[in-house]
Amino acid sequence: MSAFTAVDVIRAKRDGGVLGDAQIDWVVDAYTRGLVADEQMSALAMAILLRGMTTPEIARWTAAMIASGERLDLSAVDRPTVDKHSTGGVGDKITLPLTPLVAACGGAVPQLSGRGLGHTGGTLDKLESIPGWRAALSNDEFIRQLREVGAVICAAGAGLAPADRKLYALRDVTGTVEAIPLIASSIMSKKIAEGTGALVLDVKVGSGAFMKSVDDARELARTMVALGGAHGVRTVALLTDMSTPLGLAVGNAVEVTESVEVLAGGGPADVVELTLALAREMLDAAGLPDADPEAALRDGRAMDAWRAMIRAQGGDPDAPMPTAPEVEVVRADADGFVASVDAYAIGVAAWRLGAGRARKEDPVSFPSGVVLHKRPGDPVRAGEPLYELRAEHAARIPAALAEADRAVRISPTAPAAKPLVIERIG
Amino acid sequence: MSAFTAVDVIRAKRDGGVLGDAQIDWVVDAYTRGLVADEQMSALAMAILLRGMTTPEIARWTAAMIASGERLDLSAVDRPTVDKHSTGGVGDKITLPLTPLVAACGGAVPQLSGRGLGHTGGTLDKLESIPGWRAALSNDEFIRQLREVGAVICAAGAGLAPADRKLYALRDVTGTVEAIPLIASSIMSKKIAEGTGALVLDVKVGSGAFMKSVDDARELARTMVALGGAHGVRTVALLTDMSTPLGLAVGNAVEVTESVEVLAGGGPADVVELTLALAREMLDAAGLPDADPEAALRDGRAMDAWRAMIRAQGGDPDAPMPTAPEVEVVRADADGFVASVDAYAIGVAAWRLGAGRARKEDPVSFPSGVVLHKRPGDPVRAGEPLYELRAEHAARIPAALAEADRAVRISPTAPAAKPLVIERIG
Repeated sequence: MSAFTAVDVIRAKRDGGVLGDAQIDWVVDAYTRGLVADEQMSALAMAILLRGMTTPEIARWTAAMIASGERLDLSAVDRPTVDKHSTGGVGDKITLPLTPLVAACGGAVPQLSGRGLGHTGGTLDKLESIPGWRAALSNDEFIRQLREVGAVICAAGAGLAPADRKLYALRDVTGTVEAIPLIASSIMSKKIAEGTGALVLDVKVGSGAFMKSVDDARELARTMVALGGAHGVRTVALLTDMSTPLGLAVGNAVEVTESVEVLAGGGPADVVELTLALAREMLDAAGLPDADPEAALRDGRAMDAWRAMIRAQGGDPDAPMPTAPEVEVVRADADGFVASVDAYAIGVAAWRLGAGRARKEDPVSFPSGVVLHKRPGDPVRAGEPLYELRAEHAARIPAALAEADRAVRISPTAPAAKPLVIERIG
Repeated sequence: MSAFTAVDVIRAKRDGGVLGDAQIDWVVDAYTRGLVADEQMSALAMAILLRGMTTPEIARWTAAMIASGERLDLSAVDRPTVDKHSTGGVGDKITLPLTPLVAACGGAVPQLSGRGLGHTGGTLDKLESIPGWRAALSNDEFIRQLREVGAVICAAGAGLAPADRKLYALRDVTGTVEAIPLIASSIMSKKIAEGTGALVLDVKVGSGAFMKSVDDARELARTMVALGGAHGVRTVALLTDMSTPLGLAVGNAVEVTESVEVLAGGGPADVVELTLALAREMLDAAGLPDADPEAALRDGRAMDAWRAMIRAQGGDPDAPMPTAPEVEVVRADADGFVASVDAYAIGVAAWRLGAGRARKEDPVSFPSGVVLHKRPGDPVRAGEPLYELRAEHAARIPAALAEADRAVRISPTAPAAKPLVIERIG
């Protein structure tokens, strides 16, 4: 017989109390083992969402989630390990060029990624549009590739933070995703369990992000930076703008293509800017402050690392990418400037085209998505292409068009420029 | 495909919104039919507990719970129907003398009761200590007895408010029992569905009650009175003190014995006072303001109705009640006055002796319980009996003794008298 009951723990949080270490350890462990029922954990999650948690509570909750599974030992990797995590955005393909770029500069990047759900894409879905590439690696394969290539992007194994896996699925169906303590502990438990020595967080703010306000994003970032520090992982966060999609491409194959352009020394300015800003933070955190990521993009070392990384997981970096049979080009109906391109609406449009999934078990369409021809601030003339929608089935176009149409605003004057990196917390 | 999703409804309430009629109808119906999962309803219940509901939301929620099952038609009963509901207390046997008393005065009382859980006793558990008495009646038996005897106390059938039945069991294990909108709609949906024309609520306040403060009790009472009115049930509430147990007996058989004393014209003053106060309210609400319940107690008509009611359900009103083999008498250790007898601690003591159940499926012990020899305000001399503990097994005594010992305080001076009926709301 346990000293605790689920109802006592729920009531304590419901009434605004602070949960004790032993209560947290017990409830996370008991939930993982099925002794606390889903309906009890969802009531607790809602109480946590509405009542909050103190920093020590979040730290203990995170530790309990890590303790629910294995913690990888990356000591066999002779380069400094450093990872990046983004809270998710629209057109956010940064992991793709960034991982090989940091590897090319001397770091080892153990990137365990996820799949997309809702309007934000998933890194694994994007990479799976490369013929032959596989997301699942064993722990041994993961560590070997990290040693030999310095760059891995793969699916997290079932052994890492199983409590988080179970709780995340529950939060998704119970309206309790948006609890900062639970978001922070979910992200950090997986990153700490994967064994990285340092971590850079890209906390997105804006319509296309999870956090709509800078204040919420800052609170989440500070919470996660503190959690990393408490577990010996050097952690830094950048708050970055997600009111506009990143780059021009939003989808799966189209984002891979844009990432390869960046690795070839080209690509949209904002994608290059954020890739370099995050690379510098990662290299600093990894103890490699003298590395020169701009040079690594220029001289082809980053591209070499990308090709080695894709090949190591069975992918063919030279294979043609899948293309969409249905393309609808939308043109400007007036002269002026692109005033704004709303990230959320473009994300929903890409999702409706088939690039994302409505339910976990749905497949994604690799060639579908939105490709912008203009970005905020660009001048435009009536009749010029603004963006195009790509799909495997024409029936997908109208609903996506309605979303995208709302996303793009044209005005007679140029909008004020917005900084991409809003704030650094570390 | 429904126009609603559970997550949308949960989020709306979580963010402090007001649920629309169609959302409420959908979520209650979908939950009853298993389309909304337990973990979703528990998250919603927690959001309701912490965010509250407006009066129209509670009214619609109650209507949806009534609509989940049948509503009894008592039009075949030629007397005015009136029921009473108590929110639960310690030693609260009032239903037992009150039901036949009101019937003896010309009302028909369709009392659907429950079983005890935790420190408060259940009316059905108490009556089952009478040899032969059975709690389960069919709808036809229920209506026939109501016509012929005018008094029925029985278990609610599964057809009444099945949504409430399912939700109540869920709230019990998820720390969401204490939500006033859910308490009010749970009580009122069952009482409205049972078909009574009028209703008197006994809303308890104090340590032994669910509501610890007069403000909370008043809010609950006002909410329920409004709900009754909205459904055409004349409803009145009394807020009554539950810081001290009602009467001298707390348990099952001992409470039946005390109730019979009241019906015989005797019994503790507080039990008589509350029985008469509630009877007057019920008779007024039933349109029988000239009835004289004091006379009905005095002249034996109430006792006749009790005997007919018990017999109609197979019970023998003359059978000896079960007695406990283990009795521990506790005596005062000083001269003075009984300053207080804490209802909650006495309730827990009786529960530990076996009078109550820890889990729904546990049996109760009929003869076990606490019998007070002194009540607050009574003078006492060192060595005089204060109370006795009765149990079927001696092993039950020590833990109960520890609770009861904390319950009774003796002081050199008499305490100020407290009113039993605190407030009337109607």
